[in-house]
Amino acid sequence: MSGLPRLALTIGDPAGCGPELVAAALASRSLRARAELVVVGDRRVVEAALARRRRPPPSGFGVHATPTLTTAAEARAAMAAGAPTLAGGRVALDAIEAATDLALAGRVDAVVTAPISKEAIAAAGCVHPGHTELIAERAGADVVMAFFAGGLRTALATTHIALRDVPSRLDAGRIGRAGFLLDQALRRHEGIAAPRIAVCALNPHAGEGGLFGDEEPRLIRPAVEALRVAGVDASGPLPADTVFARARAGEFDAVVALYHDQALIPLKLLGRGTAVNVTLGLPFVRTSPDHGTAYDAVAAGTVEPRPFRVAASLAADLAAAR
Amino acid sequence: MSGLPRLALTIGDPAGCGPELVAAALASRSLRARAELVVVGDRRVVEAALARRRRPPPSGFGVHATPTLTTAAEARAAMAAGAPTLAGGRVALDAIEAATDLALAGRVDAVVTAPISKEAIAAAGCVHPGHTELIAERAGADVVMAFFAGGLRTALATTHIALRDVPSRLDAGRIGRAGFLLDQALRRHEGIAAPRIAVCALNPHAGEGGLFGDEEPRLIRPAVEALRVAGVDASGPLPADTVFARARAGEFDAVVALYHDQALIPLKLLGRGTAVNVTLGLPFVRTSPDHGTAYDAVAAGTVEPRPFRVAASLAADLAAAR
Repeated sequence: MSGLPRLALTIGDPAGCGPELVAAALASRSLRARAELVVVGDRRVVEAALARRRRPPPSGFGVHATPTLTTAAEARAAMAAGAPTLAGGRVALDAIEAATDLALAGRVDAVVTAPISKEAIAAAGCVHPGHTELIAERAGADVVMAFFAGGLRTALATTHIALRDVPSRLDAGRIGRAGFLLDQALRRHEGIAAPRIAVCALNPHAGEGGLFGDEEPRLIRPAVEALRVAGVDASGPLPADTVFARARAGEFDAVVALYHDQALIPLKLLGRGTAVNVTLGLPFVRTSPDHGTAYDAVAAGTVEPRPFRVAASLAADLAAAR
Repeated sequence: MSGLPRLALTIGDPAGCGPELVAAALASRSLRARAELVVVGDRRVVEAALARRRRPPPSGFGVHATPTLTTAAEARAAMAAGAPTLAGGRVALDAIEAATDLALAGRVDAVVTAPISKEAIAAAGCVHPGHTELIAERAGADVVMAFFAGGLRTALATTHIALRDVPSRLDAGRIGRAGFLLDQALRRHEGIAAPRIAVCALNPHAGEGGLFGDEEPRLIRPAVEALRVAGVDASGPLPADTVFARARAGEFDAVVALYHDQALIPLKLLGRGTAVNVTLGLPFVRTSPDHGTAYDAVAAGTVEPRPFRVAASLAADLAAAR
């Protein structure tokens, strides 16, 4: 053991950009200087991805091969499909499950996941809409989805639900948990002694003193007060249309957003393609890039390796500080 | 007549930053080179603002004095209050009403409004939440609120309502009207032959094919199709978390947003304090800066004149191209 944090890198959908991203990460000197890397996935998919590189990455990384329930012909077909397949979904799921189990057993410190296809994992029998829910269930944890993009860190109180369901699904406990996990992550992993956490309002102008909606006094203010009682330097509810600019200017270390687009609109503008999805509330670190399988880019030979490398690099930082 | 467009500048709340902003705009050479300026407001407030400048602006601007229903003592008190007052609200309303009437009579081409206090105009008996609604009613027009910030132009299908009311208040007609007025404004005022208009989705990932919410197929797609039938180059519904970055990158000329924060979060991040509020659907041009009365900045002597000047400058451009 080197003392460096150990990262499991899952290969994602075999027809997507994942295998190529993982192979590129294995070849990254800066990443290898900061972490021990273990590829987790179907051995045939991993070998094909390594063979496709002009120069193979230097030895010294681990490979944790997942059980081969697909035939060689199925694996080849899944890799070549350029689209979601049942066999591809099975291969992707095997890697996620194996990596989660390695992390739960303490054999790796962090899991970095390459993109999967929702359609493929659904075809392979998975009921979860994505990595976050799947890993959370396997770990038995109540997690919060967060995004780190440069200096902007945001946790979401609700995620993949219809906008019309957001007001009824929000509750003070969920908002408080997002703030609490952000506070804990920033203290533990980023060495910020007393993180300043802003909590977004739901309504325009934070409801303008009760003119538009009542969620600010009814749900959000109690959550902020509970956080403050628990020792978290929380502020809010703050108008969502200015809070991200204030955070960017240094007034806050992190922001609790109440719904998907409230967080993702500013993150994608400010993160410029390198926002990292971070799952808070697990007993290990988990990150992923904020993009999909990019089947088109695979076909065109234009896969962009940087977001995955940034996600792995953040995982190394977070895991090193555990 | 110089052939330049004529702009009415309203003084706004007399205790706020408005009078100072108007006086600064009158002194702006670049603005005076492009428009004839007419200050609209209580003569005592206008004179006090001009007197407070180290050097008075050169002559050659107009003053349209509003009726004096407040006493001299009330006007002085309203100016000095540093806070909303009933008299201040009355003075602010008089200016807006007079400027609107000048524009409706064709005596000015555009109205640029300085910030008012909602509380003060409510105390003075106004039932509208702000300029946009007040001017729309006086003009008998069905207007759409829009924001222009650098290269990003956005119209809103709903404005100051609770987030939980957004899904039920949205309708295809409202979305279509926002797209249609944006298209018209960009053709007529900005010389874009076939503006490319993106229409936001309401739900995360544009509903992910019906997984979260049904507004995309039920309301938004029909609105986009109606726009296309009417000859507008409209696209959508597009995921809101990437559409603003795509517009910034040049893929679209303008975006129709469905609710306040969906538009204002990206605009305030990208506009960096100089987003201009534009009212579409009036028979004249109307702009305003995207900030409030700034009572604190007035007291501290730190009023920032640039956003009002940018709003006036945009009004001059839009009016020149009518």
